[in-house]
Amino acid sequence: MYNASDYIVDFLLHKKINQAFVVTGGACAFVVDAMGKNKDFIYKSFHHEQSAAMAADAVYRVDNSKIGITVATSGPGATNLITGIACSYFDSIPSIHITGQVNSKESSKYLKANVRQAGFQETDIVSMVKPITKAAKKVSDFQDLKNTLEEFYLEAISGRMGPVLIDIPMDIQQEEVEKFTPKNVIPKKTNFKISKEDSETLNTFFRDAKRPLVLFGAGIGLSNSQNKVINWIDSLEIPFVSSWNGLSYFDHSNNNYFGHIGVYGNRGSNNIIQNCDALLVLGSRLDNRQRGSNVDNFAPGAKKLVIDIDINELNKYDQTYKALNYDLSYIEEITSNIIFSGINKDWAKYITSQKEKYLFKDLSTYHKNKNSLSPYAITKKIVDNLPKKSILIPECGANLCWVYQTMNIKDTIVFTSGGNSPMGYTIPATIGAKLTNPNSSVYGILGDGGFQMNIQELQTIAYLNLDIKLFVYNNFGYGIIKQFQDTYMSSRYEASGLGYSQPNFEKVANLFGFEYRKIETLEDLKISDLTSSQKLIFDVILDPNTEIEPKTEMGRVINDQFPYQTDEEFEKNNNFFLKNSDYNRPKN
Amino acid sequence: MYNASDYIVDFLLHKKINQAFVVTGGACAFVVDAMGKNKDFIYKSFHHEQSAAMAADAVYRVDNSKIGITVATSGPGATNLITGIACSYFDSIPSIHITGQVNSKESSKYLKANVRQAGFQETDIVSMVKPITKAAKKVSDFQDLKNTLEEFYLEAISGRMGPVLIDIPMDIQQEEVEKFTPKNVIPKKTNFKISKEDSETLNTFFRDAKRPLVLFGAGIGLSNSQNKVINWIDSLEIPFVSSWNGLSYFDHSNNNYFGHIGVYGNRGSNNIIQNCDALLVLGSRLDNRQRGSNVDNFAPGAKKLVIDIDINELNKYDQTYKALNYDLSYIEEITSNIIFSGINKDWAKYITSQKEKYLFKDLSTYHKNKNSLSPYAITKKIVDNLPKKSILIPECGANLCWVYQTMNIKDTIVFTSGGNSPMGYTIPATIGAKLTNPNSSVYGILGDGGFQMNIQELQTIAYLNLDIKLFVYNNFGYGIIKQFQDTYMSSRYEASGLGYSQPNFEKVANLFGFEYRKIETLEDLKISDLTSSQKLIFDVILDPNTEIEPKTEMGRVINDQFPYQTDEEFEKNNNFFLKNSDYNRPKN
Repeated sequence: MYNASDYIVDFLLHKKINQAFVVTGGACAFVVDAMGKNKDFIYKSFHHEQSAAMAADAVYRVDNSKIGITVATSGPGATNLITGIACSYFDSIPSIHITGQVNSKESSKYLKANVRQAGFQETDIVSMVKPITKAAKKVSDFQDLKNTLEEFYLEAISGRMGPVLIDIPMDIQQEEVEKFTPKNVIPKKTNFKISKEDSETLNTFFRDAKRPLVLFGAGIGLSNSQNKVINWIDSLEIPFVSSWNGLSYFDHSNNNYFGHIGVYGNRGSNNIIQNCDALLVLGSRLDNRQRGSNVDNFAPGAKKLVIDIDINELNKYDQTYKALNYDLSYIEEITSNIIFSGINKDWAKYITSQKEKYLFKDLSTYHKNKNSLSPYAITKKIVDNLPKKSILIPECGANLCWVYQTMNIKDTIVFTSGGNSPMGYTIPATIGAKLTNPNSSVYGILGDGGFQMNIQELQTIAYLNLDIKLFVYNNFGYGIIKQFQDTYMSSRYEASGLGYSQPNFEKVANLFGFEYRKIETLEDLKISDLTSSQKLIFDVILDPNTEIEPKTEMGRVINDQFPYQTDEEFEKNNNFFLKNSDYNRPKN
Repeated sequence: MYNASDYIVDFLLHKKINQAFVVTGGACAFVVDAMGKNKDFIYKSFHHEQSAAMAADAVYRVDNSKIGITVATSGPGATNLITGIACSYFDSIPSIHITGQVNSKESSKYLKANVRQAGFQETDIVSMVKPITKAAKKVSDFQDLKNTLEEFYLEAISGRMGPVLIDIPMDIQQEEVEKFTPKNVIPKKTNFKISKEDSETLNTFFRDAKRPLVLFGAGIGLSNSQNKVINWIDSLEIPFVSSWNGLSYFDHSNNNYFGHIGVYGNRGSNNIIQNCDALLVLGSRLDNRQRGSNVDNFAPGAKKLVIDIDINELNKYDQTYKALNYDLSYIEEITSNIIFSGINKDWAKYITSQKEKYLFKDLSTYHKNKNSLSPYAITKKIVDNLPKKSILIPECGANLCWVYQTMNIKDTIVFTSGGNSPMGYTIPATIGAKLTNPNSSVYGILGDGGFQMNIQELQTIAYLNLDIKLFVYNNFGYGIIKQFQDTYMSSRYEASGLGYSQPNFEKVANLFGFEYRKIETLEDLKISDLTSSQKLIFDVILDPNTEIEPKTEMGRVINDQFPYQTDEEFEKNNNFFLKNSDYNRPKN
């Protein structure tokens, strides 16, 4: 018997999706069964739905011809997906989540009852995920399921992309239905046209600029326009900086690249963006980790033009920003309207000196004072020695900052869950990455806190025998919180160091069949281990209070970072920026 | 400086709440700091917010003078709580969840922007938990926080209880405020009054009944009326059966107790409820796991009267049910209106014979055929040998069924997360239970699948040095799903056995400092281990396909359970029930 679950699998195969990440359960068992029966489809079992959703989030990030799929059961199965779905939503990653739901006739809606729950484990997952999905729906019958599959698939990959969720009652899953036959959907061809007014805006934007700059956002990569943008930049020698999520999409040795900006951005790059006078932002939402909390003094001397696919992101800006709502897929049509006639000597000299002084330089001091291992040095050693076309996934907090502050990559696929940034992301994301690109070497860098959050998935790695390498930057607690507590709570490390604990990581490695390396010095890391065919856990021992350097604290402008420069140094590095007195630089 | 976070802690202390379960993070660090600073308050760090919320769910269940509290950070911290919060919601358990939120001025609302996210990790947790909380709110300023604390605390513990969530922006948490001074809130005294009409309904309900029965629901225990109900039952010798969540609240050796009903209920008890002619339901929502999917044939010969605090639960019933909306706290006023004049000999004989034949009897056959360990036998040995006033927490799926089908307790506190029933519940719930009642012996029974879901919390047990005993009923996969697949999917064990894996549990025990016992026969379980001062993991080895017996399959009435009786046996056991031909008993 061919049922609606078989139909779903055939639909996915038709869209060239042949893999799903699942935790089964009563209410989704028919869908999983159909996946198991179909010889062209593969499902992989995870040990927690959260991890399945995080792994699914990684799929598109490593191969934009694929989309992550999860299947979970009703109730806790569905709610366990939520944190992973949020990863996809905030970073505009397409993914499809299929949840089982109680039989239609057992639902509270059928009973016309406004009760907390009617069917066993019945939960209104659709309402719950509304704030973190582009679309979510409980289907009412097979016809609705058919239409929803087509619509939601398109929704996930169109416009500003994102996750979708389809909730399917058990009775519909097992309904006997007609076989799937592909419809020839002719995608609506958007006639791309830039208005006359916008054309004029683009035309003149850099005309009178003395200190032009481009900010490279992740939207460029998400629209698959990275090569076109880099070609345009290279041909005209336009200086650019990048957002962190933008960093995934170009070769960092590019001469026109002047580093990454933000609260934890490079000091030189922050100086550059703060001192520019014309800033073109391509596909970046300029969130608080980019502009800092002192938003009014972000690039205060610059006129700003933001181009983004999401009109809502543009509506948030005040009148000091000019905003154009275009899809960066049409980047050539956009850039062809921009006139850029080179940069003057002063600006060239300034940005070059800032890059030379700060980018790819480890200027951190903490480890020197403590005579401990520098997270920057170990990251550099890792990143510099990755095989070609590796995948590197740092997690969140301090480890994320150390990696992104150090990163200098050529063809490595680097990503993290930027906007959601959960502890526990890296282990499942490495699994998702490896299952998507089995030929790539996959590396995770994470903290000891995050390592424990989805530790059960080490079993998934073991069972699937994936040669993943995990670097646990072990600072015995939540490092980024400790640094926050240093600043605001007189170093009371409540729940970040105090009351926090961890198991013996060597025993953890042993339990799950990983090789284990303790890294206490730079030399302890053997290059040969990076290309070993074994799965490996590197326990990278850091001083518990190892700091993130530099870091912008609350209220400061992003070019005024800890460790603080003297007023003199600060002014020397910011030729064109406001004088200290103009914006009341806080005392240090 | 005394800030709003200090105020929260003083508020909680005033309500006699002195413990919270936390995972810290940037956006909640001020609240955790205040908890750490206050010498009268204790916080405990968990390794995943999901576990903190599940532990908090256990608090009220073991001590109804206390309420579980969690603190989590914005974004993933908050969303990780969700599955645990749902446990409290569906089972009417009060709990309070405090989430940190981005600074007010960094929020998308402040920017008047309809964006996916403005502040870092900003997530609309309030909308997301609306379907699983009684109340949820992001507070707008300190005054709002003050009011919300009082209101939400009352909301959590009033009426049909449940969880609440308060979302607090960071700027409000650290605001300097006046010290907390307790308000003398005089609780509104509800004048309890039963209407004349309802009084008449109660009065006459059992009058003409030949086969009366009471169904004991969890609402009795939640309203703390269990002793009054049992006294009433005992004084009039009223036969009663129980829902599974009701089982926590009375001594099972009670002569008037005739077992537990439902899809996985006792065969004799199901026969009794199906054959009764007047069923009084006290504080039970009669969900699908109680009435089965063949709802129309639930106790078909009985007139039914349901008394419940939640009017919405009552509105779901069709006209064959009579429903009264009263708070069971006033149970004496209610029962004083009920006239019960004893039961006739036929009914007494029938229910007694059903009890003798089926209750507390292990009639399972699977293990005999396979010559494997019986989950029923091992459960009986555990339960029969628990120290006084122990706490026992089975998890979900097959292990839950085996325990509840076997249970015969006197003063043990037994509970599970009935309505949500997530894998991963038991480990955190045992921690919450032990931290609430440190003098009780705490036991968890769970499956090998669920054991892995929150395995990271074994570290919390280790660090806090809690002498918890965990029985892993190890059937190498998701047993209840396998049984479902036996029935509906020709025993294709996709993702329940196939593709599922587990680590070596002895090594797991060793890693986290637990003693380990492998239980392959009944004799392997040493009674002395039950009272050992060590934390212990018992790896109870079952045949992978061990079945739940009995079990009601979809579409059947609850007294027609697998393993199936012959038509003859079935009719013999159901003197007063419909004839097979009356409701089309399916062929077996």
